[in-house]
Amino acid sequence: MKRPVRIGLLGCGTVGAGVVSILQSNGRRIAGRAGGDMVLRRVAVRDVAKARDVEISPDLLTDDPRLVVEDPEIDVVVELMGGVEPAFELMAQALRHGKSVVTANKEVLARHGAELSALADEHGAALLFEGSVAGGIPIIKPLRECLAANRLQSVMGIINGTTNYMLTGMSRSGVDFESALQQAQALGYAEADPTSDVEGYDAAFKIAILASIAFETTVRVEDVYCEGISRITPADIEYGKELGYTVKLLAIARETDGRLEVRVHPTFIPDSHPLAAVNDVFNAIFVQGDAVGELMFYGRGAGGLPTGSAVVADIIEAARRLRRGGNGLAPAKPRALPVIPIEETVSRFYVSLRVVDRPGVLASIAGAFGRHEVSINSVIQKGRFEDPIDLVFVTHEVQEAHLRRALADIDELDVVRRISNVIRVEGPEL
Amino acid sequence: MKRPVRIGLLGCGTVGAGVVSILQSNGRRIAGRAGGDMVLRRVAVRDVAKARDVEISPDLLTDDPRLVVEDPEIDVVVELMGGVEPAFELMAQALRHGKSVVTANKEVLARHGAELSALADEHGAALLFEGSVAGGIPIIKPLRECLAANRLQSVMGIINGTTNYMLTGMSRSGVDFESALQQAQALGYAEADPTSDVEGYDAAFKIAILASIAFETTVRVEDVYCEGISRITPADIEYGKELGYTVKLLAIARETDGRLEVRVHPTFIPDSHPLAAVNDVFNAIFVQGDAVGELMFYGRGAGGLPTGSAVVADIIEAARRLRRGGNGLAPAKPRALPVIPIEETVSRFYVSLRVVDRPGVLASIAGAFGRHEVSINSVIQKGRFEDPIDLVFVTHEVQEAHLRRALADIDELDVVRRISNVIRVEGPEL
Repeated sequence: MKRPVRIGLLGCGTVGAGVVSILQSNGRRIAGRAGGDMVLRRVAVRDVAKARDVEISPDLLTDDPRLVVEDPEIDVVVELMGGVEPAFELMAQALRHGKSVVTANKEVLARHGAELSALADEHGAALLFEGSVAGGIPIIKPLRECLAANRLQSVMGIINGTTNYMLTGMSRSGVDFESALQQAQALGYAEADPTSDVEGYDAAFKIAILASIAFETTVRVEDVYCEGISRITPADIEYGKELGYTVKLLAIARETDGRLEVRVHPTFIPDSHPLAAVNDVFNAIFVQGDAVGELMFYGRGAGGLPTGSAVVADIIEAARRLRRGGNGLAPAKPRALPVIPIEETVSRFYVSLRVVDRPGVLASIAGAFGRHEVSINSVIQKGRFEDPIDLVFVTHEVQEAHLRRALADIDELDVVRRISNVIRVEGPEL
Repeated sequence: MKRPVRIGLLGCGTVGAGVVSILQSNGRRIAGRAGGDMVLRRVAVRDVAKARDVEISPDLLTDDPRLVVEDPEIDVVVELMGGVEPAFELMAQALRHGKSVVTANKEVLARHGAELSALADEHGAALLFEGSVAGGIPIIKPLRECLAANRLQSVMGIINGTTNYMLTGMSRSGVDFESALQQAQALGYAEADPTSDVEGYDAAFKIAILASIAFETTVRVEDVYCEGISRITPADIEYGKELGYTVKLLAIARETDGRLEVRVHPTFIPDSHPLAAVNDVFNAIFVQGDAVGELMFYGRGAGGLPTGSAVVADIIEAARRLRRGGNGLAPAKPRALPVIPIEETVSRFYVSLRVVDRPGVLASIAGAFGRHEVSINSVIQKGRFEDPIDLVFVTHEVQEAHLRRALADIDELDVVRRISNVIRVEGPEL
């Protein structure tokens, strides 16, 4: 193909503007790397009259996305509208027309990734989505290609910048969840309705995508166990520090005996773990493979230019494939890999209890743990001269179902005022 | 191509055994990802009788490497012998026969990479070398493909595990260089002759390769400024800590006004910098691009299996290219990008002086700095009740030539017993 590769954009918000700006400022370099010129042919937006951060010739703008996906002169459709519909239907339509599709839409991929992949295969088109997870950090291609020699064992990531910013603030200055949220909102890092970030739904979409790639399967987002950060208190963070732990919202996917764990929840990790040093809005993905050992990929997980960097890399890849003809190899069929119910997963736990300071309290709680095969690694007692006091336990590895039964018993004890919090613990025992 | 892709190995030491072991244990997975089977056809070793960590059928072994590079039935030659000759000539020969070449040989690439690339282009063969830098960490392909949307600004890495292990030990336990070296040698992390690691030569080869890829140019290893870690003292590490810095042996490549800085030297970085948390034998590469911002790639920089992971990924890539026919796009011609002499580079500096404790000492030293346009960011004085004392300065950014002239003047001052050390400082000012 000697002529320029022609690109159509669906959506031109933050990421779309980033993509256009990169194509404009680094166009010559990019043409060299893509093996020839690229040209932006059409941009579908909701409101053509709206002021934008980038200059786009008015005759490229349209408010009809069908003019992008049906234009026979467009080779690569770049979907950056977000949301499931009409994004899904438009991408499907583009693939049916044999166009390559590049997207950064985590929700569509987490919900309909398998259908879109099948369509892409059927029509010999590329479906690329590096920008859908962790913004500018290269992770999809590294997992697929650079780590292709490995049996991957686990993928563990800080893949939501908003909650990482909040937890970093809570750790540094001791503020509570509400203050951290207000600060994040004031800085534009959290949305007015922060539910998707703070409840872990955003991370759940992303880990569904990562797990599907890393383990060559199809993970449904409904199968991702999900817990947010709203119940993390300054006391938990303080107790964690004393124990040598940092709290992070981790998204975890791990293959265990032919089944998959996929979960998002606040997690204590040792201060010495590389993920513990990932602060503010930065993202990082920690990968373990049988040959490579431990790897970590770190960078900016959001923003127009970082995400645009990943999207444009995909556009370049799509252009190279078009130029050399054919679409690489047909990907292998996804494996059937059942997801383990959270009750059956094995983890270590931090358990914080508010108890009456009375002789025999520790014995009765330890007894309840013991009856359900929960063994204790460490315990700290806080507030010696107050009553009630806090008792904080870190368990050894235990099946979640056993822990829950033990906690149900503990909750019944007269001396226990409340179970303040339960937080999973990852990484080597300290 | 329906038949298996046939692989020939040159060398079967630590990395070679890792490659064979990965191909054996993950063969089925790898075949799926490579689009078909691969078969190990011949392994050239120095001594066919030697005991090995992996099982290789004796009829595959030969002590004649020409039987690998000249065998028309071998598609991919994997060079893991190390050293410049005969590795270079064998790879050149393989490429002339149109075979794809995969190598982890940093020295050959740093010295003859451009010639090998040209040969590969000429004969339509692939030349892949992910394993040559930072072991299992994916960095060559991410730089080339995943970051193709960016104008890269700098690449900064901890790419020598031996020295990072030693500096980590010196930081943690206050031991001196000699003890740290002995410990590293006892654990097998340092060789009996540690020159190549501790003097930074190993890192210089690797940064020459990384800089050539990142900046699409050809960096000669002779142009890499190189300083080792043997002059770092426990006192430097202690003073650095007080100032908020961690010392690392960094390899740095940075484009400045159309020229390239390429250097390897001990460097103070702020404790909060992601590279400061990279400890023990781990490697990491910190990349800055105009779109993506800051990225870091972290993992194991050496070892048979981690490096084998990168080599096998390259073998899979070579197989895919063979199967789809053609060798991707011809790479762009390297740019001419002159390397800046170290005297012209701009940096911040830590300067440690042993001086007589006498009124006016600080003024005369400050005067010498001032005369040469060196301005001071911070100063600490140690050993209040001893004489002589240590005066430690951290400068603002200054051209190295100016600093050297100031130090020459300072060295002449009667009150200055000696210039104990000069260490460059990277990262934001504290």
